[in-house]
Amino acid sequence: MSAADLLAVLVGRHLRYDWDEPANPGNDHLIFSKGHASPLLYSVFKAVGVVSDDELMTGYRRFGSRLEGHPTPLLPWVDVATGSLGQGLPDAVGVALAGKYLDELPFRVWVLCGDSEMAEGSIWEALDKASHYKLSNLIAMVDINRLGQRGPTELSWDLETYRRRVSAFGARALVIDGHDLAAVDRAMAEASDISGDQPTVILARTRKGRGFSEVEDREDWHGKPFPPAMAERAVIELGGERSLIVRGPKPDPAARSARDAAASAEVKLPSYAIGDKVATRKAYGQALSAIGVRRDVVAMDGEVSNSTFADQFAHEHPERYFEMYIAEQQLIAAAVGFSVRGYRPFASTFAAFLTRAYDFIRMAAISQANIRLCGSHAGVEIGADGPSQMALEDLAIMRAVQGSTVLYPSDANSAAALVAAMADTNGVVYMRTTRGAYPVLYDTRESFPVGGAKVMRSSDRDQVTLIGAGVTLHACLAAADQLQADGITARVIDLYSVKPVDTDALTAAAAVTGGKLVIAEDHHPEGGLASAVLEALTGAGHVDLTVRHLAVFELPGSGTSQELLDAAGISADHIAAAARSLAG
Amino acid sequence: MSAADLLAVLVGRHLRYDWDEPANPGNDHLIFSKGHASPLLYSVFKAVGVVSDDELMTGYRRFGSRLEGHPTPLLPWVDVATGSLGQGLPDAVGVALAGKYLDELPFRVWVLCGDSEMAEGSIWEALDKASHYKLSNLIAMVDINRLGQRGPTELSWDLETYRRRVSAFGARALVIDGHDLAAVDRAMAEASDISGDQPTVILARTRKGRGFSEVEDREDWHGKPFPPAMAERAVIELGGERSLIVRGPKPDPAARSARDAAASAEVKLPSYAIGDKVATRKAYGQALSAIGVRRDVVAMDGEVSNSTFADQFAHEHPERYFEMYIAEQQLIAAAVGFSVRGYRPFASTFAAFLTRAYDFIRMAAISQANIRLCGSHAGVEIGADGPSQMALEDLAIMRAVQGSTVLYPSDANSAAALVAAMADTNGVVYMRTTRGAYPVLYDTRESFPVGGAKVMRSSDRDQVTLIGAGVTLHACLAAADQLQADGITARVIDLYSVKPVDTDALTAAAAVTGGKLVIAEDHHPEGGLASAVLEALTGAGHVDLTVRHLAVFELPGSGTSQELLDAAGISADHIAAAARSLAG
Repeated sequence: MSAADLLAVLVGRHLRYDWDEPANPGNDHLIFSKGHASPLLYSVFKAVGVVSDDELMTGYRRFGSRLEGHPTPLLPWVDVATGSLGQGLPDAVGVALAGKYLDELPFRVWVLCGDSEMAEGSIWEALDKASHYKLSNLIAMVDINRLGQRGPTELSWDLETYRRRVSAFGARALVIDGHDLAAVDRAMAEASDISGDQPTVILARTRKGRGFSEVEDREDWHGKPFPPAMAERAVIELGGERSLIVRGPKPDPAARSARDAAASAEVKLPSYAIGDKVATRKAYGQALSAIGVRRDVVAMDGEVSNSTFADQFAHEHPERYFEMYIAEQQLIAAAVGFSVRGYRPFASTFAAFLTRAYDFIRMAAISQANIRLCGSHAGVEIGADGPSQMALEDLAIMRAVQGSTVLYPSDANSAAALVAAMADTNGVVYMRTTRGAYPVLYDTRESFPVGGAKVMRSSDRDQVTLIGAGVTLHACLAAADQLQADGITARVIDLYSVKPVDTDALTAAAAVTGGKLVIAEDHHPEGGLASAVLEALTGAGHVDLTVRHLAVFELPGSGTSQELLDAAGISADHIAAAARSLAG
Repeated sequence: MSAADLLAVLVGRHLRYDWDEPANPGNDHLIFSKGHASPLLYSVFKAVGVVSDDELMTGYRRFGSRLEGHPTPLLPWVDVATGSLGQGLPDAVGVALAGKYLDELPFRVWVLCGDSEMAEGSIWEALDKASHYKLSNLIAMVDINRLGQRGPTELSWDLETYRRRVSAFGARALVIDGHDLAAVDRAMAEASDISGDQPTVILARTRKGRGFSEVEDREDWHGKPFPPAMAERAVIELGGERSLIVRGPKPDPAARSARDAAASAEVKLPSYAIGDKVATRKAYGQALSAIGVRRDVVAMDGEVSNSTFADQFAHEHPERYFEMYIAEQQLIAAAVGFSVRGYRPFASTFAAFLTRAYDFIRMAAISQANIRLCGSHAGVEIGADGPSQMALEDLAIMRAVQGSTVLYPSDANSAAALVAAMADTNGVVYMRTTRGAYPVLYDTRESFPVGGAKVMRSSDRDQVTLIGAGVTLHACLAAADQLQADGITARVIDLYSVKPVDTDALTAAAAVTGGKLVIAEDHHPEGGLASAVLEALTGAGHVDLTVRHLAVFELPGSGTSQELLDAAGISADHIAAAARSLAG
């Protein structure tokens, strides 16, 4: 109710939207960063006539309904799922970046923010990037009703402090009474002029429960429905109107001339000679640059592009590369925003630092966004930089994302092939790359389907299966050589697709080797390769297993790669010893 | 080198620190938020004489050395591990909160920040909370050398924009030339006066590589050592001094009179009658309030204390409750800061929103911090609010934290007992609580050791084992009743300790029931209960298993708890059906 006046003016007079064609590329965007205001959003949908009174009254928050407790893109007019606060605005930055720099369309991105969420750092990452990239097409409307879920907000109605903060972060701040309809109209008219080089933030002083004297500006009504008689009194006090169809302006028809995003240029992936030592992170950058001939591929990085090798793409396709500096939440949100506009975004940083944006990654899955993530420098393999830079939980957290794909190539040619596959894989798609350079293992003619695995060594007499990926696959191969010298034949599996995992290859290997498996991973023991293998094998039916699981159980320190792999017990000697204990 | 002048003046003249007694409670704190400046920090340790030239020259970044690539508390003068940018300042807010409000000691917390990390939202969460809580004992020194890892920073040497931002966030901004020693000295003297009610931010314009003309203000030297001859020229140009012992002021001896934090008051936990319906989140709040008689217990929440029930503690112990509003990164960092000062912090929010702070939780483990986290409203069980509010990956991500403990009680009495156990458990300790009220299952005399499990139903003739925790344990019990009516005897295990897990109880159950297990969890299939069970069983030796794993495989929507549990296939009927398929 505090933001109803804002939305009424916006939807009636400023939002350029063809409600009969939500996919119209010229439509403005409307994102409710305060997702808990879903009753207001759905009321807008009712007011413009795309949701019926019946659906609204019987469907809201009900099982099977698209009118969920917080908005999701099940509704064609919703771009992104919100409900984790402080995400809608960063997502909108991505949409606005796409509009200004790639679509080159005059649409505006309107975002309704709550005042409570201004305490989230991600809001300031968003405003910082919005001003850095001069996103005059981005308009945030902050509903400053001074009451959070639990009581007063930190800044209450201190509009001046809000004004100073958003101004300092480079936005044009417009301070208004959010219930003065003329003032709201003037502010929105001013914000609609996108010829400047600043984002706009409309700071609207509002009252929670506005228009219904029994609750206005009172605590303890957050998220609670009125009892029926009280609701009846509210409708009467608000004027008694129950059904009104209001539609505002439509987008300029000329704005439809969007350029053909999905040009199908032929991709020529880099190729590497077997035995050459090449880091998979380098192959990532070179392959990304190669698929950049597809004009819908967009890349961004968190100020480490010279380490992740995303700088290869930045060099070749600067017009589609966006530097996000050290702001990983905004990095992921920007990718989500590009996905909203139909691009194929690739976002990269050190794998360890993707943990910074995990809430955004989780929400991207609920948004049904199609984003590709690359985390470099994974595991103790990185060596001297120490544990703060080691991703030892990335496989676990990425596997746990709904509908995700998790890839972990061991050599440069498979990495390049998988980068190409990522572009055509939907959902949240993650690739883990390695710092060091290791021998190329595969010919460029090999294929690496998502969900597959490579059986690198095999015979009908295999006594034990060695399973690795990334640096531990190289260790498994070396261990197999040691075992061979001892007369032990080992099957070796490259588990490059950690999710989905190749259950058939694993089941076959377990069957041949009597269920004797050594699983080695440069990762904490929980939720990574072993978890993927065990969940797959037990999911396939009865199993009879004897497993040795080698992983990073203790807190590592600095050292060389080899010292740290040895200390963690995941190097070739350890794998061979574990295999001997099984096969012996 | 850009910050060496700052540190020289600080350590020589302003930092009150007894280097012979790092545990002196009156010592100032010095936190390198820019952890990659470890060579400077270790040089300080050499300059004050606590690290030898030999250790520095032979140990830095070497295996087995405490001088890791980024600082960790292996060094007694280091409070927290840094290296993931934007965390040292938020951690320092926690230390300063403890100093001002609990220790009531006059120590100051000095933090060296990099300019690149000012792009992290967490920095602004920290300044916001520092000004909200009037932390005049917090002094951030920002080393604005304008060059990040990859090139120029976003704001370069735009000191005025930095000044406006930190001022708007409530800090006293002091802009100086970071190489003008007199100006540095004056700023630090001004900052040392902690009688005001604002934190101080010293914005120091500096030059990377300062003092060595071959690299000063040049790109491409980030994180790279000089070749020996070049290093020799650098030492000469810097004055040729190689060994100098400098110590500054010591803390006021009177500052030692810290109050007795660990008062051993007797805790009287709440108790609940078997069969009464009580939510575990409510038991969390009531038990937390009860253990609050221990004066070292501190609580904080992310503006949902009326949902997590942390408000019970806030009501009883307002002097040790800190509202962190909707800023989950700062929520966790504050807990880490309280841990640095020896308190027992408990931080709570919705389990879904702990994902926002995962990088901080990961780093807390590397910091060897002792923090207790509670995530409420876990799983599809929450019902109508929809997937953005459902934690369906929390068990996976918390299990993957190094050395963590993960608890998931099913009833109020076990929840209360485990809250008490959390206070005495080190490391990162996580409890998942449930929104809805379910029957109390246990007598208050039962004990719930961390690492244990409860066998709720058992006989020598059990045909199948049902494993659940939280809401699915209640479903398992109902399923066991259904199975009993069919003549199938089921063992039921309450896996309240998800990590460490009770391998003995699991192994015994698998042995009795022929390896037939049904594992049901209100969580995505990856990395949760099933993963814990499978990793434990296979870790114990040869296994022969037939497993049915019931989990939340598809993206859920809104609905009632029961509708969503049914739709996910984790309700009693589904568990019973899976058990029948195994036992039949």
